[in-house]
Amino acid sequence: MDSDDDISRANRAKRGSPYLNTDQAAAYLKISGRLLRRLRRAGKGPASRHHSRFIQYHIDDLDAWSKAKMSAGAHHDDA
Amino acid sequence: MDSDDDISRANRAKRGSPYLNTDQAAAYLKISGRLLRRLRRAGKGPASRHHSRFIQYHIDDLDAWSKAKMSAGAHHDDA
Amino acid sequence: MDSDDDISRANRAKRGSPYLNTDQAAAYLKISGRLLRRLRRAGKGPASRHHSRFIQYHIDDLDAWSKAKMSAGAHHDDA
Amino acid sequence: MDSDDDISRANRAKRGSPYLNTDQAAAYLKISGRLLRRLRRAGKGPASRHHSRFIQYHIDDLDAWSKAKMSAGAHHDDA
Repeated sequence: MDSDDDISRANRAKRGSPYLNTDQAAAYLKISGRLLRRLRRAGKGPASRHHSRFIQYHIDDLDAWSKAKMSAGAHHDDA
Repeated sequence: MDSDDDISRANRAKRGSPYLNTDQAAAYLKISGRLLRRLRRAGKGPASRHHSRFIQYHIDDLDAWSKAKMSAGAHHDDA
Repeated sequence: MDSDDDISRANRAKRGSPYLNTDQAAAYLKISGRLLRRLRRAGKGPASRHHSRFIQYHIDDLDAWSKAKMSAGAHHDDA
Repeated sequence: MDSDDDISRANRAKRGSPYLNTDQAAAYLKISGRLLRRLRRAGKGPASRHHSRFIQYHIDDLDAWSKAKMSAGAHHDDA
């Protein structure tokens, strides 16, 4: 998931976690926890992980999902 | 989108979101929500994302769009 | 475990360790140390190592376990 | 130990070493230097080398020892 080395990652892992619970993930995506749970049940939300019985979202998966929902826009227009 | 590590990003994600809704994005760009919606429909605005039925703008995409609209200016003039 | 060269790895090894103890690993996975110990006894947790009598988790093994618990989500949907 | 060519390895060798002394190796493994010395005397620690009177551990041997102490865990379970 990360390209940097295992020691750096372990050092960071001792200070925090890349995982968000459902409500944290929903707040990040600016949608309600209720909608995120609905999307999950429908198989339409971001990838999630069952750490035993706890559902967690990796920050990378939230960003990937959002990116997949992107409409191109007009970065190179000169309107 | 970010080059820094996943834990830092997850920690920040628990405190806030990089996404703005249409009116927030418009205010950031100093244009009206009505104009931003018009640009979106015309495919001429910043990239947007459909988080389920909610349209969001990532701050990076707003900055990128703005930068694409930049005119070179005269930084190296000695007028 | 790393693909880069042995000298780089040794240099990094002099500055830190890729191993987390049980409580550090549990915090990283956002579960309790008690649950992680239970999963370990049940053979259902991440791979662990006995460095003599000390149990350690390699950061790569924690990430691999989490990934194995992933539900696919909908990265490629256009819902 | 490395598969790449001798010139590359020599160039890298001019910049650093893949060897750790006992205390560095112990810190890397998250055990005490005292325990590592005890394991060495008991023939139960990682492979070590006597460079003349100096005992050194190659980073690859530390990783190999740790790997040999691994309990499988449950990477492929869907518990």
